[in-house]
Amino acid sequence: MNAPDRHAVPLAERLALTREPFPGSRKVYLEGSRPDLQVPLREVLLSNGERIHLYDTSGPYTDPTAAIDVRSGLPALRAPWLDSRGDTETYEGRIRQALDDGGKDDARLAQLRAEAAALQRAPRRAKAGTNVTQMHYARRGIVTPEMEYVALRENGRREWMAEYQRDAARERRLAGNPMGAALPKGPITPEFVRDEVARGRAIIPANINHPEVEPMAIGRNFLVKINANIGNSAVTSSIEEEVDKLVWAIRWGADNVMDLSTGRNIHTTRDWIVRNSPVPIGTVPIYQALEKVGGVAEDLTWEIFRDTLIEQAEQGVDYFTIHAGLRLPFIHLTADRMTGIVSRGGSIMAKWCIAHHRESFLYTHFEDICDIMKAYDVSFSLGDGLRPGCAADANDEAQFAELRTLGELTQLAWKHDVQTMIEGPGHVPMHLVQANMDEQLKHCHEAPFYTLGPLTIDIAPGYDHIASAIGAAMIGWMGTAMLCYVTPKEHLGLPDREDVKQGIIAYKIAAHAADVAKGHPGARARDDALSKARFEFRWTDQFNLGLDPDTAREFHDETLPKDASKVAHFCSMCGPKFCSMKITQEVREFAAAKGVAEREALAQGMADKSAEFKAGGGEIYIPIGKA
Amino acid sequence: MNAPDRHAVPLAERLALTREPFPGSRKVYLEGSRPDLQVPLREVLLSNGERIHLYDTSGPYTDPTAAIDVRSGLPALRAPWLDSRGDTETYEGRIRQALDDGGKDDARLAQLRAEAAALQRAPRRAKAGTNVTQMHYARRGIVTPEMEYVALRENGRREWMAEYQRDAARERRLAGNPMGAALPKGPITPEFVRDEVARGRAIIPANINHPEVEPMAIGRNFLVKINANIGNSAVTSSIEEEVDKLVWAIRWGADNVMDLSTGRNIHTTRDWIVRNSPVPIGTVPIYQALEKVGGVAEDLTWEIFRDTLIEQAEQGVDYFTIHAGLRLPFIHLTADRMTGIVSRGGSIMAKWCIAHHRESFLYTHFEDICDIMKAYDVSFSLGDGLRPGCAADANDEAQFAELRTLGELTQLAWKHDVQTMIEGPGHVPMHLVQANMDEQLKHCHEAPFYTLGPLTIDIAPGYDHIASAIGAAMIGWMGTAMLCYVTPKEHLGLPDREDVKQGIIAYKIAAHAADVAKGHPGARARDDALSKARFEFRWTDQFNLGLDPDTAREFHDETLPKDASKVAHFCSMCGPKFCSMKITQEVREFAAAKGVAEREALAQGMADKSAEFKAGGGEIYIPIGKA
Repeated sequence: MNAPDRHAVPLAERLALTREPFPGSRKVYLEGSRPDLQVPLREVLLSNGERIHLYDTSGPYTDPTAAIDVRSGLPALRAPWLDSRGDTETYEGRIRQALDDGGKDDARLAQLRAEAAALQRAPRRAKAGTNVTQMHYARRGIVTPEMEYVALRENGRREWMAEYQRDAARERRLAGNPMGAALPKGPITPEFVRDEVARGRAIIPANINHPEVEPMAIGRNFLVKINANIGNSAVTSSIEEEVDKLVWAIRWGADNVMDLSTGRNIHTTRDWIVRNSPVPIGTVPIYQALEKVGGVAEDLTWEIFRDTLIEQAEQGVDYFTIHAGLRLPFIHLTADRMTGIVSRGGSIMAKWCIAHHRESFLYTHFEDICDIMKAYDVSFSLGDGLRPGCAADANDEAQFAELRTLGELTQLAWKHDVQTMIEGPGHVPMHLVQANMDEQLKHCHEAPFYTLGPLTIDIAPGYDHIASAIGAAMIGWMGTAMLCYVTPKEHLGLPDREDVKQGIIAYKIAAHAADVAKGHPGARARDDALSKARFEFRWTDQFNLGLDPDTAREFHDETLPKDASKVAHFCSMCGPKFCSMKITQEVREFAAAKGVAEREALAQGMADKSAEFKAGGGEIYIPIGKA
Repeated sequence: MNAPDRHAVPLAERLALTREPFPGSRKVYLEGSRPDLQVPLREVLLSNGERIHLYDTSGPYTDPTAAIDVRSGLPALRAPWLDSRGDTETYEGRIRQALDDGGKDDARLAQLRAEAAALQRAPRRAKAGTNVTQMHYARRGIVTPEMEYVALRENGRREWMAEYQRDAARERRLAGNPMGAALPKGPITPEFVRDEVARGRAIIPANINHPEVEPMAIGRNFLVKINANIGNSAVTSSIEEEVDKLVWAIRWGADNVMDLSTGRNIHTTRDWIVRNSPVPIGTVPIYQALEKVGGVAEDLTWEIFRDTLIEQAEQGVDYFTIHAGLRLPFIHLTADRMTGIVSRGGSIMAKWCIAHHRESFLYTHFEDICDIMKAYDVSFSLGDGLRPGCAADANDEAQFAELRTLGELTQLAWKHDVQTMIEGPGHVPMHLVQANMDEQLKHCHEAPFYTLGPLTIDIAPGYDHIASAIGAAMIGWMGTAMLCYVTPKEHLGLPDREDVKQGIIAYKIAAHAADVAKGHPGARARDDALSKARFEFRWTDQFNLGLDPDTAREFHDETLPKDASKVAHFCSMCGPKFCSMKITQEVREFAAAKGVAEREALAQGMADKSAEFKAGGGEIYIPIGKA
């Protein structure tokens, strides 16, 4: 809302990684069943002595004790777990080619690659004949450290939450509506996580070549997650900016990040991002494959695509968007649309199919793709290449024909124990949102749904993070597991640092609104802690418990800059004389002082008034029933 | 999102009324059955020759041909209509007192009042024994010019909308869900407006002392409206800023404005605002009454309050928030709340009731208040003094006990033909929103609901316009007639110019999302026009059809500043090589070129592929039914 003018921020400052812990907060770790299983939480110390523990996506960057060097990457915390399973081997990976970075090498690239040299690792893959996916372990009854990590992380510390849930009547009144989700009443156990992954109802995106990742789950019965997209582009941006955007995005709460880079240097960009990312990284491999054929969709081949999958799997990408549901016979269904095919990957494949009069090689080679996925535990994000690009195209046959195909492909992926989620729209008016969730659940067998928004209207360019947060909150409540953010720049330009933050905060709001509505255990406790701080005029606590403490404090300072007003028992909205909360506290003291007898007296007083009024001919006392 | 640093904007600039028409737009007027009935519309001229007509709240300020002098006010367009009814008289109004402006006069105030001298008018009131409310006329079968104005305004120009609704299959697929609303299929007639007002299902806030107002309707079967709050405060702000905020607020789409001024100079502030406002103005009279007793709630009396109602009715305030539903026996119900009573007016009255051990004088004198309302056609906005102040207090007995009382008072107001709407929360998690609408419809007999948000979560200080736009869009779809905006500064400070704009845009998004979901005739046409422009790379048309053309263009310029790129057939998101819309157009041409025979050939091709696959053992072709 009142970001500093982005052009006023010097480059150096924009590129400096933000490493300060959040105000009044410090990083704490929950230890699991083994000493190397350390689950991070953000501890907020309140002025009244309470300690609130929050889910923390920011990684080591907000831990002042952590030594960070983006040129050597984060520690490989999962390496011992992978080693102990003994079903993987390192090998001499695919030879890097100039084409991987979009063409002939140049000095700039050589320099970038040299800087990134320390990030190179020998890739790891499944030993011949083995399958190393979390789903494969889960189905064989194995609880992995990744699953235990997820259980501890989803629970956080329930003790402080319980403090805010002591009023049984209140909890009954506010009981959530899970809309069909099977949320556990008690704490989430590692066994529950295993079972959800085995059923395919949740995924843990964690490529064996991304040992730096802090495991997280995407599933209807866990906290709703959000994804932020970053990426360079043929038009703007640089590698440093991408790594900075990653750190910035996870600081504000991105659970996953997709690298949508196109154009030059994308292989090297990805090295930097993956090695420095504590969150799962997703990509759309067809973008790089298209680069390799000079941007001519017709020239794409299965061989080039396959090579690109292996290239990215060796780098450690955790999930691939694959538009395998966009089939040749569906393409003509888009001809009468208002905005046709708006998915980049979808339109590339549509062009290929038509040029060759052949079925998509993503579809015909789907099981070959599964073989690659299970050798590295890369998860499918089955792309919705035919998603609507405007309200007018929502819920049409092209969209749903593809969705049904994604359901078929999900079963095929599960045959190979490959973790799978399903991408969804897009642009959908509010009254058509439920149908999207219902169709996905019906045809995709409860595989996690991962939607882009949806945007509920089309007339808000510049504010589509808001237009879409409305749809995102609703579909999140209905059962969507992860929400792909939309920034204010959607449809207009590439998001910069401030746009990324604005998009993420809007989506943290949507995801949390969904968790509260579903009745996720403890989800509302943070709201209650903040509301209590607000009512007790603990301003600093109110700021620090919010999604963006910096902006909250800044807004308060604008009207009441003095530190004194941070403890003032009034605020600038009403001023000292008028403060409703101040008056309420007096009311409360009064009401509390009165006993039952007093209330009866009041009731009697009412009876008299009632008689008075009836005499006055007021029709005000007609029974509710007749009203 | 990227507002210029507010402190960088010089005062002079902030106080200059923004009068430029919107880009590519001009003001046009629809003439009604009489030449002095001129309904404004904003005409957007598109680059392809189309003319789009939009609902316009900005008044004469965006009409370059209109002469504006804030010191003499807007033309009294309704004066001839009022005269022609012959049921009102002008009279020597109540004598202004120093106390009306919050205490002893000073030089500054004298100067302000002198500047505002030209704004003084002899007040008008109903002749003895008459009732001049729109509801009273409606119930006697009279269609007033105000009703005809509303009908024309709600329809706009349906011709261009019809152009976007020619695809019958699409319209069926996107048919809205009115959630019980009775939206007319065809154009809205003056008779329909009359009937809705007669039933109490809609109100037309139009005090006979506010002849400058451009009539509008608030009702479930009309477009969803939004209200913006402005007002000075004991802590900051000035009269000039308030008038500027009014003009700024209606420019961005505020249908109504509430003046929540407190402290000094509020009578004179109101003169300036009402005389310069083409939209209805609402107030909370108890604020001023409290000023008159030095801020000591216990010292309030019916006489002082009554005098304040008359003072404001003579000035032309169109609706009063009256917290008459907050009754003595309800107060103790708030004792166990997380945040007690958060309504200013509500807490003031609660304090009075407890201090005197007596029922609220607003409740006991309700019919006396009705007598004042009907003499000036001031509408009730029955206040929810016990609305929840946080998610934890949502839908509790205190809130609903008051709501049921508001239903009783509604019937009492209707006995006097006084127009009435009902105020609602506040803070409500998504899953409890529907119950608020259901209870209101059940107990308040379809009187228009007017909610504040509701905020769906409490952890977003600095972003509560977003947290509340989610709840606002949902409850608007469910039947709420007007949405009171929330700005980014909610809970933190007083909104300035940029905050007001951000709050309004967020609420225009929510209101439009609700209109589209309800299936309001033609609501989606603007989205379709913008989407078509987007698909055809008509960038300038896309900007100009949006809610904020300035920001949309600014965002686009940041990445692609050249004018050439305003007609470029690609955008910065994908760059020239990758543009999905560009590819889609090629796909469309292809698909369009193919006939039925071609499609059958494709189908046959699929059959072959299918056979191939089955041979390959793929389970991919299992029937959907089994999937």
